[in-house]
Amino acid sequence: MTQSHIPTETPLLDSVAGPSDLKRFSDDELARLSQELRSEVIRSVAQTGGHLGSSLGVIELTVAIHAVFNTPMDKLIWDVGHQCYPHKILTGRRHRMTSLRQKDGLSGFTKRSESEFDPFGAAHSSTSISAALGFAVGRDMGQPTGDAIAVIGDGSISAGMAYEALNNAGHEKRRLFVILNDNEMSIAPPVGAMSSYLSRLYANEPLAALRQMAEGFEAALPPPMREGAKRARQLVTGQPASGTLFEELGFTYIGPINGHDMGQLLPVLRAARARATGPVLIHCCTVKGKGYAPAESSRDKYHGVAKFDVPSGAQVKSKPNAPSYTAVFGQALCDIAARDPKVVAVTAAMPDGTGLDIMAKRFPARVFDVGIAEQHGVTFAAGMAASGLKPFCAIYSTFLQRGYDQVVHDVALQGLPVRFAIDRAGLVGADGATHAGAFDIAYLSNLPGFTVMAAADEAELVHMVATAAAHDTGPIAFRYPRGSGTGVVLPEIGTVLEIGKGRVIREGSDIAILSLGAHLSECEAAADLLAAEGVSVTLADARFAKPLDLDLLMQLARNHGALITVEQGSRGGFGAMVLHELAAAGVFDRGLAVRTLTLPDRFIDQASPDEMYLDAGLTRHDIATSAMQALGRERKVLGFQNAPRRA
Amino acid sequence: MTQSHIPTETPLLDSVAGPSDLKRFSDDELARLSQELRSEVIRSVAQTGGHLGSSLGVIELTVAIHAVFNTPMDKLIWDVGHQCYPHKILTGRRHRMTSLRQKDGLSGFTKRSESEFDPFGAAHSSTSISAALGFAVGRDMGQPTGDAIAVIGDGSISAGMAYEALNNAGHEKRRLFVILNDNEMSIAPPVGAMSSYLSRLYANEPLAALRQMAEGFEAALPPPMREGAKRARQLVTGQPASGTLFEELGFTYIGPINGHDMGQLLPVLRAARARATGPVLIHCCTVKGKGYAPAESSRDKYHGVAKFDVPSGAQVKSKPNAPSYTAVFGQALCDIAARDPKVVAVTAAMPDGTGLDIMAKRFPARVFDVGIAEQHGVTFAAGMAASGLKPFCAIYSTFLQRGYDQVVHDVALQGLPVRFAIDRAGLVGADGATHAGAFDIAYLSNLPGFTVMAAADEAELVHMVATAAAHDTGPIAFRYPRGSGTGVVLPEIGTVLEIGKGRVIREGSDIAILSLGAHLSECEAAADLLAAEGVSVTLADARFAKPLDLDLLMQLARNHGALITVEQGSRGGFGAMVLHELAAAGVFDRGLAVRTLTLPDRFIDQASPDEMYLDAGLTRHDIATSAMQALGRERKVLGFQNAPRRA
Repeated sequence: MTQSHIPTETPLLDSVAGPSDLKRFSDDELARLSQELRSEVIRSVAQTGGHLGSSLGVIELTVAIHAVFNTPMDKLIWDVGHQCYPHKILTGRRHRMTSLRQKDGLSGFTKRSESEFDPFGAAHSSTSISAALGFAVGRDMGQPTGDAIAVIGDGSISAGMAYEALNNAGHEKRRLFVILNDNEMSIAPPVGAMSSYLSRLYANEPLAALRQMAEGFEAALPPPMREGAKRARQLVTGQPASGTLFEELGFTYIGPINGHDMGQLLPVLRAARARATGPVLIHCCTVKGKGYAPAESSRDKYHGVAKFDVPSGAQVKSKPNAPSYTAVFGQALCDIAARDPKVVAVTAAMPDGTGLDIMAKRFPARVFDVGIAEQHGVTFAAGMAASGLKPFCAIYSTFLQRGYDQVVHDVALQGLPVRFAIDRAGLVGADGATHAGAFDIAYLSNLPGFTVMAAADEAELVHMVATAAAHDTGPIAFRYPRGSGTGVVLPEIGTVLEIGKGRVIREGSDIAILSLGAHLSECEAAADLLAAEGVSVTLADARFAKPLDLDLLMQLARNHGALITVEQGSRGGFGAMVLHELAAAGVFDRGLAVRTLTLPDRFIDQASPDEMYLDAGLTRHDIATSAMQALGRERKVLGFQNAPRRA
Repeated sequence: MTQSHIPTETPLLDSVAGPSDLKRFSDDELARLSQELRSEVIRSVAQTGGHLGSSLGVIELTVAIHAVFNTPMDKLIWDVGHQCYPHKILTGRRHRMTSLRQKDGLSGFTKRSESEFDPFGAAHSSTSISAALGFAVGRDMGQPTGDAIAVIGDGSISAGMAYEALNNAGHEKRRLFVILNDNEMSIAPPVGAMSSYLSRLYANEPLAALRQMAEGFEAALPPPMREGAKRARQLVTGQPASGTLFEELGFTYIGPINGHDMGQLLPVLRAARARATGPVLIHCCTVKGKGYAPAESSRDKYHGVAKFDVPSGAQVKSKPNAPSYTAVFGQALCDIAARDPKVVAVTAAMPDGTGLDIMAKRFPARVFDVGIAEQHGVTFAAGMAASGLKPFCAIYSTFLQRGYDQVVHDVALQGLPVRFAIDRAGLVGADGATHAGAFDIAYLSNLPGFTVMAAADEAELVHMVATAAAHDTGPIAFRYPRGSGTGVVLPEIGTVLEIGKGRVIREGSDIAILSLGAHLSECEAAADLLAAEGVSVTLADARFAKPLDLDLLMQLARNHGALITVEQGSRGGFGAMVLHELAAAGVFDRGLAVRTLTLPDRFIDQASPDEMYLDAGLTRHDIATSAMQALGRERKVLGFQNAPRRA
């Protein structure tokens, strides 16, 4: 597509202040509005970067839903929320789109605090049907809320949580709308039997098409719909236990329909709205990246893009100074897999995001993409470990929360050597609070028998991959942040670290800073600041949150006037484990100034990671200030004039 | 059934040392062995109590699987594990059945450390298919393991995790056996559309029965099977997208067959074992409590029973001195629901276990049993809260781990006022380590905006229910233990507690004990022991793990020589939050002896709760000893001669 295809005039869109303005448009105007909205989304995301492909796939659907339903009284819930940009533009946030995913700007997801048109926040997948059912119950119990509509992708609906919700909604039999946005694509191509099933649903030629459209809807549909959509539903009548999987679960199933054809979308939504008495599933087929050639022809359909040039689609990516932690992990694991045939890996629908694509290219039979299914993925890995294999379970910190019970019950309780590679630990930038890896140190370090590591830089990460591969006596996890490493030289082969041993980075006498993980470089900078103030600093990298290096800890406590712990995680994690040990050892009986620097007790909105750590109070200046305060010197020599102001 | 129906002679069973002995039995002998095994299970559980109904439902299945498959090389994985008693008897543990669920005895579940015939431990539901798939991959990659067989109930298979596993197994296409043990009953009658679907699968008369048995199996079956089982499968041929839900997901489906008829079980298992090349689901219909009239006629099919009299089935239940926390919660919530029509409640397949049955009797439309679906249950509650309702989500501590990401992402991040009623907090007795409520204080107290309470006794619980109902500004949780209360007088109506305020129980001067939750009585006893040693104790009940009562905390720290925190939970919880605050406030700079008494960093095996807390080092003597040690007096006056020895 060239620029000439992207209209720059948007007369209809310019007249829309909110969804209620859509009611006065004809169906033809709504179709034209969709084209304007599409060009607006492309131009807007070209300036900011963001989730383009998903949003382009639901342009017509967004217009149709807002034209037919009565938001915000009706509750429209976008699953995950990657696809909500056209929704934001139509609901009064068009003028703020240039601030998307930036500090103090619009969130990249739906967010309750941002708009009354976002009745339920999203970011993690497969939550929308559960939330919509909650609103439906509220309505039925007299709360001031109208219909509930969940829009969910074919990747998201294949997760266990969505199945639980469908199962419950089918049982409840309440009026509820689930729109399946089926683009045969989540972030990566979808996997799993459910995905094949959905493909089969529309793989065949029209078979009596909508002749068997569920009772009550048929009459409300226009003749073309009755005659036959291209990819028709295959309903087998007369058998009580037959029909689509959704019908088995108690839903009225309509579709598949073309989700880019207003001539299909509007009448189907109107018919459904007019007639539904129970749960309805509308199966919409869409194309991720629709209407923008560079996106449609891209392998990932421009799922997440940087700023880009509209005519060419060329993305403006800054050249990093060092490889990403993700790539370093992926290569290190692949190298180990080449030497050890027992090494296997599990991802939950994120082969690229986790770096497992590197190993998958070389050893495709040893990398398992289980789909959006963290619960299953963890226990599947536990089963492989019990069989004698060496599974690496690569899941982002925030998504591993989905498999927490499985980590406790199937891995920790049984002491099985599953290796957890925890990417996106700490604050992650543009994805904001919903994707923060804030809690993993806390929720793993109190599990008996677990070993928990955090990488200070990408060379350390290589060592930790080797350490995890060699650790066959119980579960082990290592965490590392999003983004580029520090640029250190990478070892050819990782060294197996001694379990539970930290390392001293520099030695001093006044104060000890004990860092866990990737904030080590910030701690080094803090030590430099302190040195400039005449404070002699010992800096150590704990490497292990569990087991703690008690020798090192006691030595730091004994030989310094104060001790500061630093981690990119919440309270209850590394700092807490240090405090428990110091208390038990009686160190506090005789006095020791200790400060535990953690993420603060509030959620941090999106910004750059540096801005987020500034907001969180975890900069080098914060660390140095805390050290001075612990030494009781704040009134004397404190003065980091260059410290940026907190937001 | 009278005693005469329970044979006391077990000649065949007496000749079985392990499953390999079953290979020499004829099919008729295997059927007779089943009867002997059934009587053995009844007599055995009559002496110990335990999960009788589930075990009686799988007697024939257990014998048939062990006769046909080659355990322990083949991996037999019982989902949940309630039904594993006949399996334990056949696999060399018959002589230890009198120790079932007791200290140092057999676990009530399967357990890897107990037997090579337990390849994967269980207790939480719906994990078996994931683990079995892991073993199947191990076999295919050359590990020394044979076939993998998962036996899963109709309740368990309806959970999202099991669906994720089916979805992935169907995609993987590996040889794998899933046996659906369908008794139309989990602990409570099952709910949800999936359950209705399974009922429909066998509701009709034989319809060409096994004529359409999946390719390759039919020839291997004996004629009676080909002619038609009672409840026949309804397969609609010729449609690529039709068939049972399991076939949609890629499984070969066989059944339904009568799970108590060896004439059906043995040939079907033999045929499946001989012919399967991919995943196979065998649908077995069984009767929970089969063969023991008191169980079959009971509403819960003797799911969990106390010791009982075999002829009559009468259970020997000790009369508690006080109502259970569960019943007190159930009644308190029902009372509040009577006054506030916005109050609703959610349970995940545990209406009786959570006490919500009390409210469900009076307000059936306001109690939602979502099935074994904690992920959905939490977000469904969040949706109801967003609509303006006041949801109470009543889930055991250990099972709320299943909904952890939803607690973080859908509740905490959005600040929605979902009320979590967390039963079975702390150590729970006979169910052992898998059911311990050890981690909830830790995994909730570091979530921004959460309020976390723990009830010191059942009157406090009533206040906390009222406090949660009144708390409309964010999420709130309250935890309470399994078992009977302390016998305190219950208030007519609960008082709304001031958020973040603790209470002083007794005032002293030497040492402060700050208790959170139901260990308060043990702390009082410890204070008495200390008083007898001349130590003056201040005892306070924190009530809130979050927000902490900082005024109280600082006052305790300022005015005493030492501070002890006590909680029925892991490290990283209440004690950790206290330490973080004391560190931040600089209290340790000038010295304060602090000890945080928590559950130890190991899993505690089943025993009575008192024995488990003794094992855990959390008795009154442990508290008092720790206090003396903190005061530096251990060498001087320590001497709790009555202290029982640690195991």
